[in-house]
Amino acid sequence: MKKLFLLFLIFTSSTMFAQIERIEPPFWYAGMKNPELQIMFYGKNITKYNVSTTNSIPITKVERTSNQNYIFVTINTKNIPPKEFHFLFKEKDKVVFTEKYNLKQRRENSAERKSFDASDMMYLIMPDRFSNGNSNNNSDASTTEKYNRELPEGRHGGDIQGIINHLDYIKELGATTLWITPLCEDNEAVYSYHTYAQTDVYKIDPRYGTNEDYARLASEMHKKNLKLVMDYVTNHWGMQHWMMKDLPTQDWIHQFENFTQTNHRRTVIHDINASKSDTKICMDGWFAPSMPDLNQTNPLVLNYLTQNAIWWIEFANLDGFRVDTYNYADPTAITKWTKAITDEYPNFNIVGEISMRDQAQLSYWQKDSPIGKIQNFNSHLPSVMDFNLSDELLQVFNVDEGKWGLGMDKIYDNFTNDFLFPNPNNLLIFAENHDTHRINHIYQNDLRKYKMAMALIATARGIPQTYYGSEIGMAGNKDKGDADIRQDFPGGWEGDTNNAFTKEGRSQVQNDYFDFTSKLFNWRKNKSVVHFGKMTHYIPENNTYVYFRHNATEIVMVAFNNSNETKTLKTERFAENIGNFKTGKDIITDQLIDITQEVRLEPKSVLILELK
Amino acid sequence: MKKLFLLFLIFTSSTMFAQIERIEPPFWYAGMKNPELQIMFYGKNITKYNVSTTNSIPITKVERTSNQNYIFVTINTKNIPPKEFHFLFKEKDKVVFTEKYNLKQRRENSAERKSFDASDMMYLIMPDRFSNGNSNNNSDASTTEKYNRELPEGRHGGDIQGIINHLDYIKELGATTLWITPLCEDNEAVYSYHTYAQTDVYKIDPRYGTNEDYARLASEMHKKNLKLVMDYVTNHWGMQHWMMKDLPTQDWIHQFENFTQTNHRRTVIHDINASKSDTKICMDGWFAPSMPDLNQTNPLVLNYLTQNAIWWIEFANLDGFRVDTYNYADPTAITKWTKAITDEYPNFNIVGEISMRDQAQLSYWQKDSPIGKIQNFNSHLPSVMDFNLSDELLQVFNVDEGKWGLGMDKIYDNFTNDFLFPNPNNLLIFAENHDTHRINHIYQNDLRKYKMAMALIATARGIPQTYYGSEIGMAGNKDKGDADIRQDFPGGWEGDTNNAFTKEGRSQVQNDYFDFTSKLFNWRKNKSVVHFGKMTHYIPENNTYVYFRHNATEIVMVAFNNSNETKTLKTERFAENIGNFKTGKDIITDQLIDITQEVRLEPKSVLILELK
Repeated sequence: MKKLFLLFLIFTSSTMFAQIERIEPPFWYAGMKNPELQIMFYGKNITKYNVSTTNSIPITKVERTSNQNYIFVTINTKNIPPKEFHFLFKEKDKVVFTEKYNLKQRRENSAERKSFDASDMMYLIMPDRFSNGNSNNNSDASTTEKYNRELPEGRHGGDIQGIINHLDYIKELGATTLWITPLCEDNEAVYSYHTYAQTDVYKIDPRYGTNEDYARLASEMHKKNLKLVMDYVTNHWGMQHWMMKDLPTQDWIHQFENFTQTNHRRTVIHDINASKSDTKICMDGWFAPSMPDLNQTNPLVLNYLTQNAIWWIEFANLDGFRVDTYNYADPTAITKWTKAITDEYPNFNIVGEISMRDQAQLSYWQKDSPIGKIQNFNSHLPSVMDFNLSDELLQVFNVDEGKWGLGMDKIYDNFTNDFLFPNPNNLLIFAENHDTHRINHIYQNDLRKYKMAMALIATARGIPQTYYGSEIGMAGNKDKGDADIRQDFPGGWEGDTNNAFTKEGRSQVQNDYFDFTSKLFNWRKNKSVVHFGKMTHYIPENNTYVYFRHNATEIVMVAFNNSNETKTLKTERFAENIGNFKTGKDIITDQLIDITQEVRLEPKSVLILELK
Repeated sequence: MKKLFLLFLIFTSSTMFAQIERIEPPFWYAGMKNPELQIMFYGKNITKYNVSTTNSIPITKVERTSNQNYIFVTINTKNIPPKEFHFLFKEKDKVVFTEKYNLKQRRENSAERKSFDASDMMYLIMPDRFSNGNSNNNSDASTTEKYNRELPEGRHGGDIQGIINHLDYIKELGATTLWITPLCEDNEAVYSYHTYAQTDVYKIDPRYGTNEDYARLASEMHKKNLKLVMDYVTNHWGMQHWMMKDLPTQDWIHQFENFTQTNHRRTVIHDINASKSDTKICMDGWFAPSMPDLNQTNPLVLNYLTQNAIWWIEFANLDGFRVDTYNYADPTAITKWTKAITDEYPNFNIVGEISMRDQAQLSYWQKDSPIGKIQNFNSHLPSVMDFNLSDELLQVFNVDEGKWGLGMDKIYDNFTNDFLFPNPNNLLIFAENHDTHRINHIYQNDLRKYKMAMALIATARGIPQTYYGSEIGMAGNKDKGDADIRQDFPGGWEGDTNNAFTKEGRSQVQNDYFDFTSKLFNWRKNKSVVHFGKMTHYIPENNTYVYFRHNATEIVMVAFNNSNETKTLKTERFAENIGNFKTGKDIITDQLIDITQEVRLEPKSVLILELK
């Protein structure tokens, strides 16, 4: 009898399948801490049906909107083991069709998964520009923009397989974590390669691969002890998102009579003098005409985004998130999103793009911030990006003079405000990313300055992040357009004459860059003193800057000379850190250096010494 | 019998008077909240005597130091009415000499005295450079540096009587409060006119007048409803301070083997990465070779400074303090100083010179700061100076372009961080002071720019402060030396050909400056909406900037055009503030302006409108 019933259901379901166009999330996982699951069904006139479930799965809420093509059904999964069940769609007690749904088994210890932290080095990749591992998916029938490597802003064919192919390169470099810019479908007609205008957030863009390819990437990475961080976009979708053609509710996105761009002044969030109108435009205005601004204050939207994020963690076995334009979203709502994820995964790290420079304003957004607390605000966001530092790293090594407030003072000053942050060690520190000039452009490929920048992010407090290609000397000028800072990695495409992925393929100059970077970050891998040790720094003198990382057993001394003259620093000044140590091992050359009296620094150089 | 005894005492006292060179405080007041009074007796070998009192005044502590010429006697004045009594100095129970001491009657409601706040306008005077009201005290036999008006850095003869003579001018200008740079004796051989290297903090410098002249100044000011703020220096004294020749204790001041200047990096105070050595040099190093750095962590020193400050409040009937180099002193100790004073006078305002720009760092120093709280620090300092704003006001009106982060954005940005301050209304706001370029130099005497700067400090939140002479167009270039920004006020000296103290004496240009300033600040006097109303501001557009001050009954609109073109602002954008108001009265011209559609702003101009 039961079997017959099921057969009947399957039959009904298949005949009526056209009724349902989308079920999101397409499946879920059993045993989540939050047992509530909001499932969106999308189909022509679906609102007219009554919904029930098989297998005694309790429905706690059914929500209909002004759009009759959507129905949001919330079930309670508490204590329900992994299983398949069905949703029954009835009209006058008659089952018209059914939909199968799966509560899958989670991986062991999924909730307790580890994440990235200051012991990691994060390598940022734009997947369209890194390596084309599968030329069969350069274009796809389902997506508008086709392959055109001649077009700087076009699709170049880089993909997930290209990344999988070069995991050994990444590991050799000393990276431990990948931040890959978004991979979900971006079906905009042009400029889709950056993929921040996503059009289906449950589907990897076919030009990058499949959902399974993405999961395979994570799996291959985990085999190599590498971590995968997804770039999640909570603030907006793309104009071609399938839902834009038939919005579930008019307030699913923020709408204006005429196109209204955000004013970007996110200070309005905490500014007690801000006007209401400025605040509204900041928070609800769109980032770009192609990017409809999501209304996270609508609980249906917020749940949709939260579940989507959790779905990817479970599905692809992720190790962390980078969240785009974090504080362009409603602060209270985005905080709920973040808290929901970190409640589910207590060790999961999420780094938000808070592109602000004032350090109190940056701190405002880090979890448990004393600055946020002034306004009873807690973002729950574990990590923010140290944009103040990156601004300085993109100019400081061109400043030869070291007066008050100039040169290395800027770097020193950055760290004097660490007390404002609840967790300075969980700041993402970087010299550049896919939105800035490349440092090798700023420094005109002066390797000495590149080394200083890398040494700083490798040894200061925080989580270092580098940007693909700079480690082999790639340069890029943002003033020429974003394409210039997002060029193809040489060797990532069949037929590339220069293959920078291998020692043999690299030029001497490329090897000079790579060898330094690789030596530095491989050294860093096991240096817990650099990951979590205390930092003590000294006021810069004549454009030199010295700090120490230290714990109970290890001491690392880092000394910068940002002037154009050789400098000799008397080490007596650093006695409280050096103590009785007499020598330091240069971690790049492995040479031992006598530090009892002084340390000699070449012009525009940095010395990292393990004290012995 | 009693009478005879007293006569005997007086006789003894006078014969032995040479024994005591100093008694400080020289007298005190009955009925203070803190009943403990530490009296310092200084005299050759005084330490050998036992000290007791007449009239049953209880001695709670007698402290001797390594220097036998000092004795510190603490008495408890609790419940003791105003009276005269004697200290008996005995050797083997025999009274060798006595010293009369007075506990005076306090003024009525002395403890509850009002102070300055955002309803005031503070006018800063350097007394040597304002007006010479008494040519008899141009030089004095007791002080080294003699009158020399030819010398830019010399003593020019300005004095207290000069200020008293021009109180009506100050009142006409619209000022309500005077901050006068230090008046206590500075007996340095050169450069004593600035008087920050004081040599006797219980005595007005004779070249300015007498202690009684100072009290008379306060009294004359109070008759005119003006308030007097004393510039107090807690961090250092002058090298010629009488005590420097015979220090009570070696740690009375911070001593180093070689002259060690402070590194000025007061970020070390909160910097969790700061080195101990940098911190020590910052806090204990001297401000200048002529300024020995006081050790406020020595309770004898701290008590000395605290009592001295309170003594001046009572003696001269002060309305507030400005404290020099506030955060160069030990933070815990200076906090005790401030708390002791504000415990004694709960309404007393004290504004500290915290010459830092980062607003979180500035906030750290204001009483009940949430930033200080991060480190369990509470400075108890009611007011700090808004140095970030003054930096901007000294350049912004020369910036014609209004891009992101430039031009009026800088001013807007300053106010977006008000949430960091526990009390933004109690920030001292200023465009210049005696340590900066004069704004009329920066703005090359462009009256339009002067007006914009003055309009801003007159209408933004906080306590406005102006600097003597700028209101009649005085300019001064700090790059030429401090003397250039501290020139004599024209008309302050007999024989001055230009007397800018009177309308008739002023040139047309001087009157243009004065009339605007006077109109502005006299208007401000009774505008509680500007003193304590809420502020709402709007993101600058094309270098225009608009804000409102408003309360339940009044609205003031302030609109700046910092560009070089005429601008017309649609008022629709400001609807949430303008509401149904249709006109605004220009507070300078008294003209009514229609604001229903737009407001027209001339190039480089500001409009202050009372909405009607």
